[in-house]
Amino acid sequence: MTSGEFSLNDLPGSAGRMDILCRCVSSALFLSFGMRRDVNVHLLLLGEPEPGKIIRFEGLHLRYLNPDERSSGSLINKALLKNATELDTRSTPGVWIRKGDLKSLLASFEGRDLVYLREDGKDIRELAGEIRDPVFILGDHTGVTEEEEKQLLEAGAKIISVGPISLHSNHCITLIHNELDRVEAERGEIPGGANSRAEN
Amino acid sequence: MTSGEFSLNDLPGSAGRMDILCRCVSSALFLSFGMRRDVNVHLLLLGEPEPGKIIRFEGLHLRYLNPDERSSGSLINKALLKNATELDTRSTPGVWIRKGDLKSLLASFEGRDLVYLREDGKDIRELAGEIRDPVFILGDHTGVTEEEEKQLLEAGAKIISVGPISLHSNHCITLIHNELDRVEAERGEIPGGANSRAEN
Repeated sequence: MTSGEFSLNDLPGSAGRMDILCRCVSSALFLSFGMRRDVNVHLLLLGEPEPGKIIRFEGLHLRYLNPDERSSGSLINKALLKNATELDTRSTPGVWIRKGDLKSLLASFEGRDLVYLREDGKDIRELAGEIRDPVFILGDHTGVTEEEEKQLLEAGAKIISVGPISLHSNHCITLIHNELDRVEAERGEIPGGANSRAEN
Repeated sequence: MTSGEFSLNDLPGSAGRMDILCRCVSSALFLSFGMRRDVNVHLLLLGEPEPGKIIRFEGLHLRYLNPDERSSGSLINKALLKNATELDTRSTPGVWIRKGDLKSLLASFEGRDLVYLREDGKDIRELAGEIRDPVFILGDHTGVTEEEEKQLLEAGAKIISVGPISLHSNHCITLIHNELDRVEAERGEIPGGANSRAEN
């Protein structure tokens, strides 16, 4: 959903499976000790009553986020209570909201490697070493529509998978991070360090 | 904590970081569509006021569990409201509680491959093909004490790691599952199928 009128006590029901997005935010940003400061998360919200809002979490500036679902739910709620326009509005440190759709979101990633997760995609383990400055695109529990997929492929997105079995988006994010952490460690870089990873 | 006196609206605070255990239960048991029926989860609760309780989730018989934290928190709460004895008491379908400590828990796994997660362990990717009927043991945010670690090693536990960087326990569980899913798929088995995986 796209209004702040939901209950933190019922994220799955009152908020249109907002619990899934909350777990994605947490999986994308949390390390055991500290946060992945090199990661940004974009949530593209297309539900009622005002479809077409983008909430951005910037790891580098983020504050007041804990790993539990209710914590990310609360920051999403605060963002949705802002009056969203075409320009970014900051709701809390490291969290911004604007109006937008998939097209405008993809346009903002121009020049970066787009990677779209689908069960029948190429194994991430064969590709992780090649992708630079990637943006990973994951659908929610209802998946991605045919029209959205067409836009992704036209924008040049590669299709990858993370394993032999269909998983929740937050679990996929954990698997992606692990793969990139391993690649960075092999290169002698510090995993969770300064390189940028974005997820949607 | 080990009483049912906690609030589902404040799992991190009122319940001694119960949110971590809730996410572990969810990561251990959920697939995108359905549940890992071959997985059991044992939560060893050593907090106040009654340290030494074991809650067991059996994937095969489990009902009323959804992927959100509050849902597993609610089943844990219902279990803790039961009067725990040395024998199993069923609180809801697929959830049992008993009194117990690490020693009695490890004794119940006799004959199985114990695998203990520690940052400096051997890479799971080198070992996943060898382990059969495994029990994975993970610490919470405070880790495992020296005495507990001694017990684990005396019981024959192998030490493994899932990557180059320290992660939350629920993220580690997702990575373990993925590794075993890949091994099973390579063997021509159905991942998430009939083999048993236990986590603690």
